[in-house]
Amino acid sequence: MTFDPSEHPHRRFNPLTDEWVLVSPHRAKRPWQGQVEPLNEQQNASYDAECYLCAGNTRINGEVNPQYQKTYVFRNDFAALKTDTPLSHNDDPLFKMTTEQGESRVICFSPDHSKTLPELSINEITEVISTWQQQSQELGKKYLWVQVFENKGSIMGCSNPHPHGQIWAQQQLPTLVSKKQQAQQAYLQAYGSNLLQDYVERELTQQQRVVVKNQDWLVVVPYWAAWPFETLLLPRFSIQRITELSSAQRTSLADILRQITIRYDNLFNSSFPYSMGWHGAPYDNKEHPEWTLHASFLPPLLRSATVKKFMVGYEMMAESQRDLTAEQAAQKLRATAEIHYKEQQ
Amino acid sequence: MTFDPSEHPHRRFNPLTDEWVLVSPHRAKRPWQGQVEPLNEQQNASYDAECYLCAGNTRINGEVNPQYQKTYVFRNDFAALKTDTPLSHNDDPLFKMTTEQGESRVICFSPDHSKTLPELSINEITEVISTWQQQSQELGKKYLWVQVFENKGSIMGCSNPHPHGQIWAQQQLPTLVSKKQQAQQAYLQAYGSNLLQDYVERELTQQQRVVVKNQDWLVVVPYWAAWPFETLLLPRFSIQRITELSSAQRTSLADILRQITIRYDNLFNSSFPYSMGWHGAPYDNKEHPEWTLHASFLPPLLRSATVKKFMVGYEMMAESQRDLTAEQAAQKLRATAEIHYKEQQ
Ligand SMILES: O=P(O)(O)O[C@H]1O[C@H](CO)[C@@H](O)[C@H](O)[C@H]1O
Ligand SMILES: O=P(O)(O)O[C@H]1O[C@H](CO)[C@@H](O)[C@H](O)[C@H]1O
Repeated sequence: MTFDPSEHPHRRFNPLTDEWVLVSPHRAKRPWQGQVEPLNEQQNASYDAECYLCAGNTRINGEVNPQYQKTYVFRNDFAALKTDTPLSHNDDPLFKMTTEQGESRVICFSPDHSKTLPELSINEITEVISTWQQQSQELGKKYLWVQVFENKGSIMGCSNPHPHGQIWAQQQLPTLVSKKQQAQQAYLQAYGSNLLQDYVERELTQQQRVVVKNQDWLVVVPYWAAWPFETLLLPRFSIQRITELSSAQRTSLADILRQITIRYDNLFNSSFPYSMGWHGAPYDNKEHPEWTLHASFLPPLLRSATVKKFMVGYEMMAESQRDLTAEQAAQKLRATAEIHYKEQQ
Repeated sequence: MTFDPSEHPHRRFNPLTDEWVLVSPHRAKRPWQGQVEPLNEQQNASYDAECYLCAGNTRINGEVNPQYQKTYVFRNDFAALKTDTPLSHNDDPLFKMTTEQGESRVICFSPDHSKTLPELSINEITEVISTWQQQSQELGKKYLWVQVFENKGSIMGCSNPHPHGQIWAQQQLPTLVSKKQQAQQAYLQAYGSNLLQDYVERELTQQQRVVVKNQDWLVVVPYWAAWPFETLLLPRFSIQRITELSSAQRTSLADILRQITIRYDNLFNSSFPYSMGWHGAPYDNKEHPEWTLHASFLPPLLRSATVKKFMVGYEMMAESQRDLTAEQAAQKLRATAEIHYKEQQ
């Protein structure tokens, strides 16, 4: 018997996080009799009088949103980070702690309550990217780290259906970012080249895991993906931070974001939930030749719009486990239509 | 302003995994308008003719379960690990992989379809522990790692309500276990003592995070807990592996398992979901003075029986975040009744 990656259990290594994932492709055949999720509700109205995020409405804290036309950014009404936390720390190896200062903001993608990223025009998505850039620029002057992310869908803990993302800025590097920085540094030192730029080359040659691409960008299901339809959005040029995008690169990024999120929605003909976020070099005014700017999409669904992958038990106690290979997931995503299902027929 | 851990955002360090968690205690006040989970269904009948795990019933693969009286162990019908995977590996830094051999088994805790761990007698829980020991003994002869765990509740991906756990054995150390081993080794080397035994002493002195204890065991909400009501079950004596428990330690373990799971059910007056699992020294026939056997309970709930904590967005891209402190969680768990809510009145 010879090894067949699409049949036999194996472990793959994530070089960015130093973690393995157990791949059990044969397990995709098991029937599912467990919890079924509520279908992600489609918003049909462009304006909802009850929505805290729609233009002109009053938020939970009494503030009134302006009649915004493009994107709209405001301070999170229940921010996890505060600007004025008094400083303190403890170096006891068993009770190590440090206070943290920062800010949490919300960014409404557009005034339209019903339009998620894949339903916006290239121009509107470009506005979102510009806002990510401006926010990172501004917060990066004050903070070492600016985390741009989006929780999409109620299954991902999103408590307001108005399409929006978040920006959390802080003084210290979060755990995962610090791991990725170390891994990229070690790779640069060992091989004299940039980890993710090398990876882009290899994926373009192998083609197996590529989902969509354009002249500037590439989306792959990474070889080491943990979530069933996880993808990695990578630049085909050298760039360390989102603030460094040129105007042309911003437009091509809007195009690729539109492409991948349309494919996602088309996979199960529904508004596809995920958490997505950006990672790049920290805002420390240093050169970071080891870093490549990238975005990750981490979607929870496995079999349908209502059956998710549970990262529990073995996954929480041992390591992530997946039931279909990255290559199989990429193939399924590539097989979807280029046009959003709502625009078809 | 001086730092108040129950008020100000801060990060705590998990010395077992080398990861930080962001604690934002003030955030517990935010209202929840997002997804509400279905209530974990209570099973009332001791036998269910439709259940694949009840004694005498036919499983999905056609096998018939015996008329078992205590615990019952069988090979997982859709095992993630296989005994006969052909060996292969790749050391390419960007496409590193290795095949894995192993076994996945299911363990029914008792023939009673309606009784979860907290509802079993001390004798019945002792049977479960003995089965964990026998299975670890047997599989530990063939495999380096034996992961004993339980997914409880449909919210935790458990697809059969008959109370049961799982055992996955494999040739290689899973990611999290290997991290914990390194951390404990480094601590032993640096301080000449055992990390978790030192931690037990400190928690017994401080008392703030202790939930329940008896002469042999201690349950704390660890200082670095990520999940709102996460707990760590620790021995008050030196032990490396579950196979090494004496008969008296098994009985006192049954007692503490009963105590903590009753408190959990009483927190929201419902069958409390969690993933739990055991970690100890690997089965490599070596001395492991750095290891202390321990169990972790990782429950998803935050505010009520139907509102969970979402580990999404910031948590997936940056680091875990929690809204109440470990001390506050321990206090809430301690405030619950000792007697199971179903037995009260
Ligand atoms: O083995 P089960 O109960 O079918 O499946 C459950 O536990 C497994 C091990 O933690 C997970 O991989 C699955 O996602 C979960 O649904
Ligand atoms: O900030 P929100 O949307 O209220 O909350 C959501 O995103 C946060 C950041 O990822 C998470 O900590 C919360 O658990 C989730 O419900």
